[in-house]
Amino acid sequence: MKKEIKIGLFGFGSVGRGLYDVLGAVEGKDITIRRICVRDLSKDRGVSAEFTDQPDRIFEDPEINMIVELIDDAEAAYYIVRRALEAHLPVVSGNKKMLAYHLPELIELGKQTATPFLYDASACGSIPVIRNLEEYYDNDLLVSVKGILNGSSNFVLSKIFNENMTYDKALRLAQELGFAESDPSLDFDGWDSLFKLVILTIHAFGIYVAPEKIFRYGISTMNEADIRFASEKQRRIKLVGHVEKKNDGGVYLWVVPQLISRDKYIYSVEDEFNGVVIKGRYYYKQFMFGRGAGGHPTGAAVLSDITACKYDYRYEYKRMNSGLDIRHTDDVCHRIYFRYRTEEDRNLLKFQLIREQYTSGEWNYVVGDVCLSDLVAVKDSLAGRDIFIAAYPWN
Amino acid sequence: MKKEIKIGLFGFGSVGRGLYDVLGAVEGKDITIRRICVRDLSKDRGVSAEFTDQPDRIFEDPEINMIVELIDDAEAAYYIVRRALEAHLPVVSGNKKMLAYHLPELIELGKQTATPFLYDASACGSIPVIRNLEEYYDNDLLVSVKGILNGSSNFVLSKIFNENMTYDKALRLAQELGFAESDPSLDFDGWDSLFKLVILTIHAFGIYVAPEKIFRYGISTMNEADIRFASEKQRRIKLVGHVEKKNDGGVYLWVVPQLISRDKYIYSVEDEFNGVVIKGRYYYKQFMFGRGAGGHPTGAAVLSDITACKYDYRYEYKRMNSGLDIRHTDDVCHRIYFRYRTEEDRNLLKFQLIREQYTSGEWNYVVGDVCLSDLVAVKDSLAGRDIFIAAYPWN
Repeated sequence: MKKEIKIGLFGFGSVGRGLYDVLGAVEGKDITIRRICVRDLSKDRGVSAEFTDQPDRIFEDPEINMIVELIDDAEAAYYIVRRALEAHLPVVSGNKKMLAYHLPELIELGKQTATPFLYDASACGSIPVIRNLEEYYDNDLLVSVKGILNGSSNFVLSKIFNENMTYDKALRLAQELGFAESDPSLDFDGWDSLFKLVILTIHAFGIYVAPEKIFRYGISTMNEADIRFASEKQRRIKLVGHVEKKNDGGVYLWVVPQLISRDKYIYSVEDEFNGVVIKGRYYYKQFMFGRGAGGHPTGAAVLSDITACKYDYRYEYKRMNSGLDIRHTDDVCHRIYFRYRTEEDRNLLKFQLIREQYTSGEWNYVVGDVCLSDLVAVKDSLAGRDIFIAAYPWN
Repeated sequence: MKKEIKIGLFGFGSVGRGLYDVLGAVEGKDITIRRICVRDLSKDRGVSAEFTDQPDRIFEDPEINMIVELIDDAEAAYYIVRRALEAHLPVVSGNKKMLAYHLPELIELGKQTATPFLYDASACGSIPVIRNLEEYYDNDLLVSVKGILNGSSNFVLSKIFNENMTYDKALRLAQELGFAESDPSLDFDGWDSLFKLVILTIHAFGIYVAPEKIFRYGISTMNEADIRFASEKQRRIKLVGHVEKKNDGGVYLWVVPQLISRDKYIYSVEDEFNGVVIKGRYYYKQFMFGRGAGGHPTGAAVLSDITACKYDYRYEYKRMNSGLDIRHTDDVCHRIYFRYRTEEDRNLLKFQLIREQYTSGEWNYVVGDVCLSDLVAVKDSLAGRDIFIAAYPWN
């Protein structure tokens, strides 16, 4: 354990500021921010701290013994983490996108340099999902991890389903409250959930699946008809990240809106909250729930990573080294609700079995069984169309 | 990390059997039960394993490199754990009562002998509360831990409030389903919750408070009037273990039935489930939920402890060594609902402020503010009376 932590912080956005506030409230003063690197030095940050716009000023400061990276730019974040590990500086990162693309390489580098590298705050803000998967579900009984991983889209969906707000109005409200990312596609097209799912999958099942291989569909084309369909079935639409191990050892993962029935835990996860259901043989189900967005909760989660780093805690990636035969697969079928307008759009999806069909002057839909591999095959063709896809689980 | 774990198991009740089943289902066969010590060798266990009734046969077996203790008898469990630690054998224990009385000494012994000693399965079955407190909430932002820690009493309360079952019928059903301990007082008078709360408090706030110092009240005197009172207020009665740090650093803890309003997470924790709300400054609230009783879920939790032991994981008891000024206190007042029959009973409780009073031919109650220190002072006089006490939080 290190006696005193002096942080070199990159980024002072909402989470960076959150960390600053949380640290200010902590009693023991053995963790301090020594220097903060930001892109725009001229901006008034409203706090008295040593700012710089030169990364070297951080890396060349001999007092700094931990790097915390909380910036938006994934590529820049990648270089910061690499440089920290190469310099044997323990590093905490919150950049999901960067992690989703570079984790295998950075894990390897962390091992080679024997340097702690933590990122619990990157997935689900204040819910300690990664460390739970690492520390607790550490045997091969784990079956699935399924959850609401993005607070902003869930906030919008809550407003729609609980308060009959329109999509546009709910989105504007989310942006006003600072819940939505500056690029709404990250939240609402499921990118953010996807990045988190990739990270969780490494810790849950020990395999890395590159984001571009994974089926991802968001809520930005959802319309009144879809909301009505869900409500008529007494369900709510939730944007869900889901990874599951099949009996044959194949692991599939996808991010997709799901029609969730009332008796499911995640049905009641409202507003900007995140909720994750972990299912295991013999464990049955466990549910973790907490604030998934916001500077202070995420800042507090980053502080937990920092404290863990201070105690030389490391992820062990036990399942990556378990020797079990676990591989990525898309060989699974699910019941899907598919709303479309034109015949051309209708033909995009290959149904193994059609269970319901509805056509009218206004809208058309099919409910039927579709293989994930077929969804993956057409995923790039789905964008920009007046269609909507949601998983429609049997129960 | 040890390559192969050969377990010497003490006890083959519901949890021991659960562990046996779960281990049988695990793919990698690097964890096996080598020998099982039971009290009654003549009983047919229905499994093919090496049974013995001689502890020495376990401790003197050079092949055995981990002890797992899952017996009912707290004193015997204590000697097993001591002996294991003294022999430098990693040990996993599930005996809450034993832990609640002997933890400080055993923690010290574990340190002296540098031998792993884990007991996550002892508190809340399959919910990894201890490890979460250890690994995640490891800074002094933690404010409170509050939850339904006992599945059997919660099962009974659920049946009463959801299905209008009588207390007696619900209790019989719980016993038939195997949820209730053989001694119902453990579950229904709050002892089981109390033991777990003592364990959680060590990990949450770094202080040990002996069970006999803590106010504990259960649900066994709850009657129709109390149920009606709760229902009229749109609340449910839940048996709650609660530890909280006051602003002045004092930590108070108690086990008491609470009138829980509908907007609280634990309001919806039903049947034999456990649910724990962890509150922190900046984190706000987190909620963990899972099966709190039953051989298989608890067996799976024990297996997680075993796997963690295999990886030489240890609790660090960071907060016990944090140097922060944290001490036990009863100096706090709460709003209480108190139902009584006689004037003598009425005078047991010292109210700082009376907010409501009701008397009738059938029953009487007072709602008012009582100091925890005054409750502790009279706690031994409360047993065996036709009274009922429940916390009645403002919201």
